[in-house]
Amino acid sequence: MTQIVSSFGVTVRQLREAQGWSQEVLAERANLNRSYIGELERGQAIPSLLTLQKLSQALGLSLANLLAHTERIAQTHAVKGIELTSIAC
Amino acid sequence: MTQIVSSFGVTVRQLREAQGWSQEVLAERANLNRSYIGELERGQAIPSLLTLQKLSQALGLSLANLLAHTERIAQTHAVKGIELTSIAC
Repeated sequence: MTQIVSSFGVTVRQLREAQGWSQEVLAERANLNRSYIGELERGQAIPSLLTLQKLSQALGLSLANLLAHTERIAQTHAVKGIELTSIAC
Repeated sequence: MTQIVSSFGVTVRQLREAQGWSQEVLAERANLNRSYIGELERGQAIPSLLTLQKLSQALGLSLANLLAHTERIAQTHAVKGIELTSIAC
C-alpha cells in the first residue's frame, strides 16, 4: 500500500481519537462499516472520494482540511525516512 | 452520482484546460487511461485516493488544494441551486 493511503489511515485514527470516539462511533456517524474504518486506519483499504467526504463530514472538517492533515503526516513520515537513511549511512 | 463527484469532474476539466492540455496529455502525465479521464470529468466515475493523488501531482498542486477547488465548485453549484429554487418559488 502506498504512503498516502497509510498516512490517511493515521489521519483518521488521530482525528477519531481526538474526538474520544471508538471506531464504532465514527462508523455510525460516517454511515460506514466498523470493520471498514479499521481497514482504513491500518492503511489496508483505499478510500473513494465519497468515503473521504463521509469521513470529513463525520469528523467536522472540510475535505481539503482532511487531505491537508494527511499530506502533513505523509511529509513527516517521508522526512523521518530520510533521517533514518542518513543514520544508516 | 453525487454533487461532490460531479464537482470533482468540473475541477479536473477546468484545471486541465487551464494548462491547455487535452485529455490525452493529462492521462499520460497522471498515468491514467484517457477514457477514464473523460468519465471522471463527466462525473461518471468515482476517483479513489490514489487517483486523486495522481491527478494532483500531474496538475502540479497539492491534494488539499485539488479538493479545496472541488469544494468551491460544489458550493457554487449548491448556491445556484438555492437561487433557482428561489426564482421558482
